Formats: sequence, structure tokens, C-alpha cells
Amino acid sequence: MKKHNFSAGPSILPPEVLLQASEAVLNFNDDNLSLLEISHRSKPFVDVMEKARALVLELLNLEGKGYKVLFLQGGASTQFLMVALNLLEKRAGYLNTGSWSDKAIAEAKIYDDIYEVASSKEAKYNYIPKGYDIPSDYDYFHCTSNNTIFGTQMKEFPKCSIPLICDMSSDIFSRQLDFTKFDLIYAGAQKNMGPAGTTLVVVKEDILGKVSRKIPSIMDYKVQISKSSMYNTPPVFAVYTSMLTLEWLKNLGGIQAIEKVNDIKARLMYSEIDLNPLFKGYASKGDRSFMNATFNLINDDLKETFDTMCREGGISGLNGHRSIGGYRASMYNALPLESVQVLVEIMSELETKA
Amino acid sequence: MKKHNFSAGPSILPPEVLLQASEAVLNFNDDNLSLLEISHRSKPFVDVMEKARALVLELLNLEGKGYKVLFLQGGASTQFLMVALNLLEKRAGYLNTGSWSDKAIAEAKIYDDIYEVASSKEAKYNYIPKGYDIPSDYDYFHCTSNNTIFGTQMKEFPKCSIPLICDMSSDIFSRQLDFTKFDLIYAGAQKNMGPAGTTLVVVKEDILGKVSRKIPSIMDYKVQISKSSMYNTPPVFAVYTSMLTLEWLKNLGGIQAIEKVNDIKARLMYSEIDLNPLFKGYASKGDRSFMNATFNLINDDLKETFDTMCREGGISGLNGHRSIGGYRASMYNALPLESVQVLVEIMSELETKA
Repeated sequence: MKKHNFSAGPSILPPEVLLQASEAVLNFNDDNLSLLEISHRSKPFVDVMEKARALVLELLNLEGKGYKVLFLQGGASTQFLMVALNLLEKRAGYLNTGSWSDKAIAEAKIYDDIYEVASSKEAKYNYIPKGYDIPSDYDYFHCTSNNTIFGTQMKEFPKCSIPLICDMSSDIFSRQLDFTKFDLIYAGAQKNMGPAGTTLVVVKEDILGKVSRKIPSIMDYKVQISKSSMYNTPPVFAVYTSMLTLEWLKNLGGIQAIEKVNDIKARLMYSEIDLNPLFKGYASKGDRSFMNATFNLINDDLKETFDTMCREGGISGLNGHRSIGGYRASMYNALPLESVQVLVEIMSELETKA
Repeated sequence: MKKHNFSAGPSILPPEVLLQASEAVLNFNDDNLSLLEISHRSKPFVDVMEKARALVLELLNLEGKGYKVLFLQGGASTQFLMVALNLLEKRAGYLNTGSWSDKAIAEAKIYDDIYEVASSKEAKYNYIPKGYDIPSDYDYFHCTSNNTIFGTQMKEFPKCSIPLICDMSSDIFSRQLDFTKFDLIYAGAQKNMGPAGTTLVVVKEDILGKVSRKIPSIMDYKVQISKSSMYNTPPVFAVYTSMLTLEWLKNLGGIQAIEKVNDIKARLMYSEIDLNPLFKGYASKGDRSFMNATFNLINDDLKETFDTMCREGGISGLNGHRSIGGYRASMYNALPLESVQVLVEIMSELETKA
């Protein structure tokens, strides 16, 4: 049976990417060797790394604008640390919009003073705070563009005279933004870019080298830039599969094209949540995420019936995060519109039945 | 043409492992979903992680002896840092046997005082220092069991009253040792265990929690243990493929069985290096690595001929590391004896020709 994979991450990847990745594990570059058993310094893999970097800059429209692209290890959680190690000298401002922001704040606090410019923690993060001030003498301002767990997404980014740092793990490459507004973007690969195991960092080079602490080599963006992400052995398979996904997106027409599809998927999903009297959305309407729609059954007695209908319809990965429960439909780039149609149909069938 | 893959790392993996890994990228666990697109908290993947952990303890004969197994990201280079962050309070002793030890020392120095108990740097690391003292009031002693670049390997480990920490990246699972002597072992996967992208840590739990510094969560062994290596999303594919390789090794008869094959491969290789007048070995005889044989042509005029013969024989990855040049035959667990036979035959043919 065809699966409709709404998993929040690691999440669905395009079938053609999976096919190419699977083939490369057996025979890469028609060289009778697996991608997994060649040197990362061999030309075929160096080419992969360079192509992946170039595709990132092209898709984000950041070519020739002073940005460097890194493919690192350790997930966004390691970036919580690296951002502070590389950029925090005295004080930084953080917007607290969910569990990930909260963790980013906790890690950075080890190194220096952190100021929460605003937080929606008291409302279990069901909205994005607005109208806060960012002091102009801070080292940087940090925010999370999309909150997978709570299903909220920043629609506007603050005007900011200090470096703007954004964790875009769960919505990068999904919508058009003026990416030149950001000085550092990071994203774990496992939503819109590839398999778990690599983390994308896009950094404006001129913000680096300004802190006084001694940064461990592997955590130093400048070292990683000087070594083209190969200070040590990179996660070869994850980088290759990310490159394939970026190529897939480019061939599809880039972010502009995928944004249209993402827009249709999200509208369809939220329209069902709002019109169907059996469900209610979790996030504040104006801040709803186009990647992760979070919703609940109003009457929990229907849970077993709904879950069974979903399972029988091939719906997979729809459970909400354990911290808020309910349901979460993650609609990343690779999720076909058809999958949302199937889910919406099941929700609507439930209404007829109930 | 069949390739004989002597790559120093990422390196050869068993064909059956590659086949299973390739299949899992398309359809994992017969569930019509790719291994890359399922939640790392789903039962099928949690089972993989548990199985991988259990196999490590079983193969190293460390079951029920107070050790915990972690699969992390960031390579051994990140462990240089984590070891110091978690264990270094005042002063530690390091044995400097090559580039990796040297880097481990440099990273640890950021955090506290490091004392080199001995070093072979002055001899371009062509031997393993012996007869040094390890002060009993240090926090720990750190060594590198095998030096890929220089082709040396520790045959004995010092008696040590303080925690013994060992980077076994390039020879773990290749030979029988009394692993209970070690308090912490770490190893990047990409030699004997799996693809690049995950790092194995085996740690005796009772050495942890003794430093006064605040350790960043992602760098804290205790946090990683409490979250079963899932503090954040693990490198799913690399962990799965490592589990397959560990399973392959177990089915083969474990370390005891593979050690016999590794012994034959190494003897065959070194005997050709020593008997063939055209070649000379790089490493001091008593310290020769059974994983990486480093050697040079005595007359460099033969280089082109030898390289061509190797290429035509399907030999791949034989170049020495750029820092010492020459040749390096890496003979990791998955390299068949046949490949060494083919290489030795070519070396011997060269002698006939020259």
C-alpha cells in the first residue's frame, strides 16, 4: 500500500532522490565502488561537496554576496553551541518561540549573558511574539523560523541592526525570503534537505573572528570554512543525498515553484481543520506553520476510529509531539499534494460518520 | 573490473552490508518507507540503535561491566574536545604518536593543562614511544591505538592507575584486547565499523560526573547516556549501516575470527615489503600497524610503472597520506585476503620487470 508520510523529521524525501542514493551505496559514479567506501578527498566526492554548496547559494539567491556554505555534523543542537562560541562576546538577544529556541538559549547561557527579547512559553508556544525591541548593542539576535512541535512559523522577521541568526531547520527551502537579511542560517538536513546526519550552515563571513575566546577547531566556523567543511571526515552519505535533494528542487523550479505547492497543501489542510467541527487547530491562526499543521480532536472518543481510518488510508507519522499530544501533519517539500488530499478526505469522512 | 579497495578511510565495507544498506534506503523493515524518512523514535529504529549497542558490548566482551555505548556525530575530532570537557579538571597525560594524537592534545589544551608523556614527533612518528611514566595524580591518560597516516600501532598498553582513554578509530574490532583495561574508547565509524557520519563511544560510567565545569548538553556524555544517544536526531543511516557491519562481524565469529584473517593479511603484506628490494617500509618493525602498511619505492623512477600496474590490477586507494607520501595499504576488516594477494603479486611482478 502506498504510504502518505507526514513524519515530522526525519521526513519524506523525493522518490527519485531515494533511488539515486540507494544506487550510490552499491556503485557510485560508475566506478564499481560504493559511495560509502571512497575517500572524501577523492575528486568525485569533492565535486559532490562543491555542487551541494553551489546549489545552496543558488537556491537561496545568495551567490556573490559574501556567504559561505558549510555541511557539518551534530544537528541544529550543535549549532546552539557553535553560534554562541563563535559570536557571543558579551550579550545576545533570543526570541523564545518553542522547545528549540529554549534549548538554544540554555546552551548559549553557558558562555555568556543571554536576554530573552520575548517568549510565548506561558501560552505553550501557540503563537509567535511580536513588537519586541532588539537592543542595538547586542552581539546578535537569534530566532527560530518554524516551530515543528507547536506548528507556528515566523511570517515576518524583525528589522535588526545587529547580526540576525536564524535556525531554519524545519522550513528552509520551503518559501521565498530575502535571505540577505540573515547573517547566519543553520538547518539540520532531515526535513527539507536530506537524511539526518548533516547540518547546513550559511554564514556571512564578515561577522566571524570577532570574539576573544579560543574556539575549539571543530567548532570554529572559520576553520571549517578554510577546510571547505572537511576539517575532518564529513558525513559523506548525508551530504550526497542532500545534494541530490537540492538538485531535485532546482529542477522543479526552485523555491519559487515549491512555495506554490506548499501554499496549496497548507491551505487545504487548514481549511479542513477550520471547517470540520470535529477538529481544532493548536496554533494561533496568523502564526500557523505551512510545514507543520498541529491539531486536536475536540472529542477524544473519536481517536480510535480516526487513527484506524488513517492507518487504513496509509497515513503515517501523524502523531503530535509527546509534549502537546494531538496530531501533526508535516507537509515538507517532498510531500505530494495527493497525500494531503487523502488525509483531508479521511477527516471529512470522519465527520460524516460521527 | 573488480576493485581492490585499500582506501584509508572512509574504507571498504562488506558487500552484504552495502546491499542491505542500499535496500533500506528504498524500503526499510518491509514497511514501504525508506530508512531515511522514518522517525528516529519509531520502534524499528529504536530497535536498530539498541541492537547496535548490544553488539558493541558483546563483540568487545564488555557486557555487564559498567560500560555504556553511544553513537554520536562529529567524528573522533569532536571526541578530542568531549574527552577534555567531560574528564579534564586539572591535568591530563597524552601520548603523542601521530597527527591525531597531536590534534587531540591541541584541542584539550584549550580547557586545561596537558602533559605529553612521550612523543615520536621528532622521528616523523615512525615508532611508538615506550617506557614513559604516567603520573598517578592526573585526571586521565590518552593514547591513539593505531596511527593510520604513519602505519604504527600500539601492541602494548601501559599499566595505568588513572582512567585510560583510547582513540581506536582505525583498529577497533580488528584484534583481541582486554577492553576492560580502558575506561573510554572512541572511534569514528569509517574504518572497521561503518560509513562516515557516526562515532562510537564506549565509556565506563563511573568515571563521569567528576569535573566542575558546566558541559554543553550535546557534549555531555551523561546527557547522551540518559537519552540513549538520542538527545537530538541521530545519524540514522550511519548507525544502521554500522549495526549491519557489527552483525556481519559477529556472524563471522567475532573479533577472534577476524583477527586471524587480519594477521595473515598483514604478514603477507609486510613480508613482501621486506623481501622485495624495490620497497622499504616506513614504520619501525616492532610497531607496524596490522591495519595500515606504509611503504615507499626506493627508486622513485619506478613510480609510474608501479602506479599503472596497480591501476590495471584494480588496486584503489593505495596512495600514502599527503604528509609522508609513498604508499599505504589499508587492510581493514572488510578487505579480503585476495586483495592483498593481488597487490603483493603486482609488487613482485615489478621486481621481475625492474
